[in-house]
Amino acid sequence: MRGSPRSAGGATRRTFLLGGAVAGVGAAAAVGLDAAVSASAQQQPSVPLNGEVTVPFHGEHQAGIDTDAQAHVALVALDLATDVDRAGLQRLMRTLTDDAARLTQGRSALADTEPELATAPARLTVTFGFGPGLVARAAAPAPSWLAPLPAFSIDRLRPEYGDGDLLLQVAADDAVTVAHATRMLLKDARAFATTRWVQHGFRRAHGTERPGTTMRNLFGQVDGTSNPVPGTPAFDDVVWVREGWLAGGTGMVVRRIAMDLDKWDRLDRPGRDQAVGRFQSTGAPLTGTDEFDEPDFGAKDAVGFPVIAEFSHLRRSRPDDTTQRIFRRGYNYDQTPPAGVVSDAGLLFVSFQADIERQFVPIQRRLDELDLLNEWTTPIGSAVFAVPPGCREGGYIGEGILS
Amino acid sequence: MRGSPRSAGGATRRTFLLGGAVAGVGAAAAVGLDAAVSASAQQQPSVPLNGEVTVPFHGEHQAGIDTDAQAHVALVALDLATDVDRAGLQRLMRTLTDDAARLTQGRSALADTEPELATAPARLTVTFGFGPGLVARAAAPAPSWLAPLPAFSIDRLRPEYGDGDLLLQVAADDAVTVAHATRMLLKDARAFATTRWVQHGFRRAHGTERPGTTMRNLFGQVDGTSNPVPGTPAFDDVVWVREGWLAGGTGMVVRRIAMDLDKWDRLDRPGRDQAVGRFQSTGAPLTGTDEFDEPDFGAKDAVGFPVIAEFSHLRRSRPDDTTQRIFRRGYNYDQTPPAGVVSDAGLLFVSFQADIERQFVPIQRRLDELDLLNEWTTPIGSAVFAVPPGCREGGYIGEGILS
Repeated sequence: MRGSPRSAGGATRRTFLLGGAVAGVGAAAAVGLDAAVSASAQQQPSVPLNGEVTVPFHGEHQAGIDTDAQAHVALVALDLATDVDRAGLQRLMRTLTDDAARLTQGRSALADTEPELATAPARLTVTFGFGPGLVARAAAPAPSWLAPLPAFSIDRLRPEYGDGDLLLQVAADDAVTVAHATRMLLKDARAFATTRWVQHGFRRAHGTERPGTTMRNLFGQVDGTSNPVPGTPAFDDVVWVREGWLAGGTGMVVRRIAMDLDKWDRLDRPGRDQAVGRFQSTGAPLTGTDEFDEPDFGAKDAVGFPVIAEFSHLRRSRPDDTTQRIFRRGYNYDQTPPAGVVSDAGLLFVSFQADIERQFVPIQRRLDELDLLNEWTTPIGSAVFAVPPGCREGGYIGEGILS
Repeated sequence: MRGSPRSAGGATRRTFLLGGAVAGVGAAAAVGLDAAVSASAQQQPSVPLNGEVTVPFHGEHQAGIDTDAQAHVALVALDLATDVDRAGLQRLMRTLTDDAARLTQGRSALADTEPELATAPARLTVTFGFGPGLVARAAAPAPSWLAPLPAFSIDRLRPEYGDGDLLLQVAADDAVTVAHATRMLLKDARAFATTRWVQHGFRRAHGTERPGTTMRNLFGQVDGTSNPVPGTPAFDDVVWVREGWLAGGTGMVVRRIAMDLDKWDRLDRPGRDQAVGRFQSTGAPLTGTDEFDEPDFGAKDAVGFPVIAEFSHLRRSRPDDTTQRIFRRGYNYDQTPPAGVVSDAGLLFVSFQADIERQFVPIQRRLDELDLLNEWTTPIGSAVFAVPPGCREGGYIGEGILS
């Protein structure tokens, strides 16, 4: 069962198909198709294109959290214009909600100038997060953790990747879909807010790997093995806020973590495995053989040293206190490097947890104090958002504090 | 037949599967899989994952030209170090060729530090182009067109997107695969060259649309309808050089064309259709109903004006001289916009043609003189490369002038 925890996940229950998808495939079979690529569609007309798969927008929670991570994301942080009051916020969130609901279902935005780009949702989700500035503007009570994270000694934060009043997480299995949806939403927001930052990220494409495969980051490491599984009580406990206007919502941490791939190159395989506490080859803990084996932190090697070193990322990130758990849903990034450098790459670390102060901060403090991986990684961006619950049809995201 | 010209293409003949792919799917069926997403694999175990599909590296031509365009590309231009002589060039191209051949077949690079990232080629191709500087360094005869393009009045070229001694076009259906392969190749080149520029682009993902669908650019336009079809004599005539050391190779133009989406938004649908000469909805010429209908430039409207206007992109780009044809294989780009701007997006225009001077330049001259689309588009980068022919196993790209 270890390889398949996601098969029981709530995420799959969210996945539906666009009406007419099957008929569409039939129509495609009537015209000629590339023989090699279309073998699947031709032999099995009931399987729709991934581009036609939709994730419901409305519900108790916003989509894009317990949804199996899509291949591409744009994280966009906006700063509210100074003259936007509570009524303006309401108009903004009504408009954004309406267009997000339409686009995720494969329909064009209300003022869509390229409706032809909206027809392939490819599991598009749009998730909104509220920064401290927006919650204050709404005159709503802010959770104690809705503030910049405490300063960590490893941080080298750049203002261009930090904070923001309103976050849009736009994710789909298709980069064109992400680009178009992001632009439509930014047009909606144009009169209310300016773009503070945009960060693009990617994972393996749909169809590259078997569903349920844990992602590898650009260091080559299996990354996210110990994540709670959507649809399980453990996930619900970790992620969802239980009380107040955020009930059914969550807390979101976005950290841009630069990974020095050039320096990482100079570390041999045993050094890499020791730094992480897992084998790069399989993702298994150094005391095990399978990715999902529980690490044995008590195990000693022949000369009495811990097999999984005290300084390893696995040991440092694993809490003894089981309430210190988070759900990670991050992406890789890889941008044009400055002259003379082989890469400018890293991780868009994204985690969801009900209480950032109680769940995320203690883990990060331990990693700040000691984590051999810090030799090769540097946090350069940081932001925190309160993610409101979902809404019903006709409602809008944030109505709990705006209406 | 109009919807399916690519079914006869040479590109499909290049597509093979990794050994063991079928066995791999069987193994996957034995573990649990996400019910919704894996329906295809479970019901039809003989269809491999797209991540396992390879495009042969060796052959008469380099791959990545007549290959059906993959979803993601990194275009990387390198400047040779001043001390790299002809022998150094040979070492560089031997190393790059060897690792490109391995990576495209799903094997790790020779000095791969993350071999686990090399196991999903996802139709990876690596295509090398030689700039004027490299050909001069090799003391080889340069084709007359291997030089910066003539200055066009519409150009606003930025040096950071121009020229270069050696081009790598790294393309695959998976962004992680592109990132890893690019990094491995840049490591090979590190001792010989510095990175001049990197440009990332994307198209629809594998599985989003039916194979053979013409891409839409971020203006929403169907873009590339009149392309010659790989595997046809017309394609061969347009693309492949017939004589000299470039025989079996081609000429490559790379233009970064900024598209002002904010301004484009203010143009209504009839205005858009007029500017292009095609309906945005279907891609059909204004005189037709189907994307592949031949435009009727003689057709007049009720008051005597041409239905397809003289200033339209379709009219201006379509030569009367049928030797002025090119094969386009471009990508969209979409980057973090500057403050206050909704998008920084456009087209990585890439075209292949045997003789850039004779085929590409006349078209571009006409578009420079008059093309309504120029109101919304601006070329901001330009580079020209000679793409050598392919090589056999044991050979290397460029051996015609380096050995």
